[in-house]
Amino acid sequence: AMDGAPPPTSPTGLSAYVAVSQLLGLTLLATTGAWLGRYRGGVAWHSPLQFNVHPLCMVLGMVFLQGDALLVYRVFRHEAKRSTKVLHALLHGLALAIALVGERQGGMGRGAGSGPHSNQLLSAGIAAVFESHRAKGIPDMYSLHSWCGMATFVLYLLQWLLGCGFFLFPGASSSLRGRYKPQHVFFGIALFALSIASCLLGITEMLLFNIRDSYSQFVPEGVLANTLGVLLLAFGLVVGYVLTRDEWKRPPLAEELALSMDFKTLTEGESPGGSS
Amino acid sequence: AMDGAPPPTSPTGLSAYVAVSQLLGLTLLATTGAWLGRYRGGVAWHSPLQFNVHPLCMVLGMVFLQGDALLVYRVFRHEAKRSTKVLHALLHGLALAIALVGERQGGMGRGAGSGPHSNQLLSAGIAAVFESHRAKGIPDMYSLHSWCGMATFVLYLLQWLLGCGFFLFPGASSSLRGRYKPQHVFFGIALFALSIASCLLGITEMLLFNIRDSYSQFVPEGVLANTLGVLLLAFGLVVGYVLTRDEWKRPPLAEELALSMDFKTLTEGESPGGSS
Repeated sequence: AMDGAPPPTSPTGLSAYVAVSQLLGLTLLATTGAWLGRYRGGVAWHSPLQFNVHPLCMVLGMVFLQGDALLVYRVFRHEAKRSTKVLHALLHGLALAIALVGERQGGMGRGAGSGPHSNQLLSAGIAAVFESHRAKGIPDMYSLHSWCGMATFVLYLLQWLLGCGFFLFPGASSSLRGRYKPQHVFFGIALFALSIASCLLGITEMLLFNIRDSYSQFVPEGVLANTLGVLLLAFGLVVGYVLTRDEWKRPPLAEELALSMDFKTLTEGESPGGSS
Repeated sequence: AMDGAPPPTSPTGLSAYVAVSQLLGLTLLATTGAWLGRYRGGVAWHSPLQFNVHPLCMVLGMVFLQGDALLVYRVFRHEAKRSTKVLHALLHGLALAIALVGERQGGMGRGAGSGPHSNQLLSAGIAAVFESHRAKGIPDMYSLHSWCGMATFVLYLLQWLLGCGFFLFPGASSSLRGRYKPQHVFFGIALFALSIASCLLGITEMLLFNIRDSYSQFVPEGVLANTLGVLLLAFGLVVGYVLTRDEWKRPPLAEELALSMDFKTLTEGESPGGSS
């Protein structure tokens, strides 16, 4: 666009799929809000509604924002790679923050006491569960949902740190970056899938704890929460489809192509397939 | 090997990952068996143990066999494509059969009565649940697990039929095959992930129905079933990793390369990106 040429366009199919993904993402948030608001008493920073902060934060951070962070290379396909990279890292960082905020504050069920005001701001995501369990005397980390969710969160944090270390800060050689990149992409998509699976497990747990006896009578809350599960899968499918279509991959800019030629020359002497 | 040349070898990393996947697959079966055998009274073709046939069939068919069917193009990388294709279709067909067998027989909770002997052989997989629900007067298809599981099964059957239609039977042009293939690969991996997610939901449901009160005390059954969930994820991760590594993709044989050149020539005149 800087040299007066017509602005580059995205493939039509891509734009349509991205639009559908964003509609699905907003529908996810609305459905989660409707479930918690209408059937679970709403969301509040204090017990007994504090628990409800958890599903909302997870759907917003670990699904919607994480999904959008994965899509930035497809959506901003003609921007400089550096800016897109920073946006990618920022969106993932925001997702992590929303999932984590407040773990220091009363997290793990044994944090030092603090005023209600700071709690109000800092108890969310993962911390909301530990705080709520502590208030009700429920043990932590016994269920499959908690195992999967915690593993997802810890690996997601690790992936973010590794991503920043390899790609954002200077230091890693382009040969090292080139080797790590396929791993980063694979685990990025795997962690996104794992996040959605953890949400589905959380929905099932919450329903079986709250409406165990009426669930099988197709009560509205059960149908609504099941629908949320199906929407989560649909969001994951659409995002995954966009990410894995070869012809929708971000085309390298001219200067990046030159760099990649350098990289090829540099690594040609090394043994291929040297996986560690 | 036919012309006396040394037999072609697989990349070392690939063989190691495939070996790990098979060990994990067998561990899955053993863990499922241990759970059902030790804590759920074992598996039998008649009530009240008939239900237990369901988890065993699903882990065997929808996870282990489906995963192995996806791996055949990586494992048998130097065999003729036609034989590998047939094996791929057969393994998926076997997985489907194990998941389905007996749906005709008393399936959907309203099949005509039949002798206990035929029931003994034909009630498994999905049918085991409907049969067991019918015997206990429990409604069908109300839970998120049942929605996800049934959607997975129906889409898996559809994918199998489309795969046979496009790739196994003559009729589809190589241009049509070339266009459908990326869709087939994407949905194949997505359905595999969906199968594993459905299993995790099933584990959570079963635990919350059976050991709801003691689950939070870290009783052995809960820890064992959670471990089964983690093993299912590990199997999915290893298989997914093998499938998506570019350098482990099956290299085309000489005659296939020639065909693919023909295909390129044929399709070059068509508009690119014509997604339907």
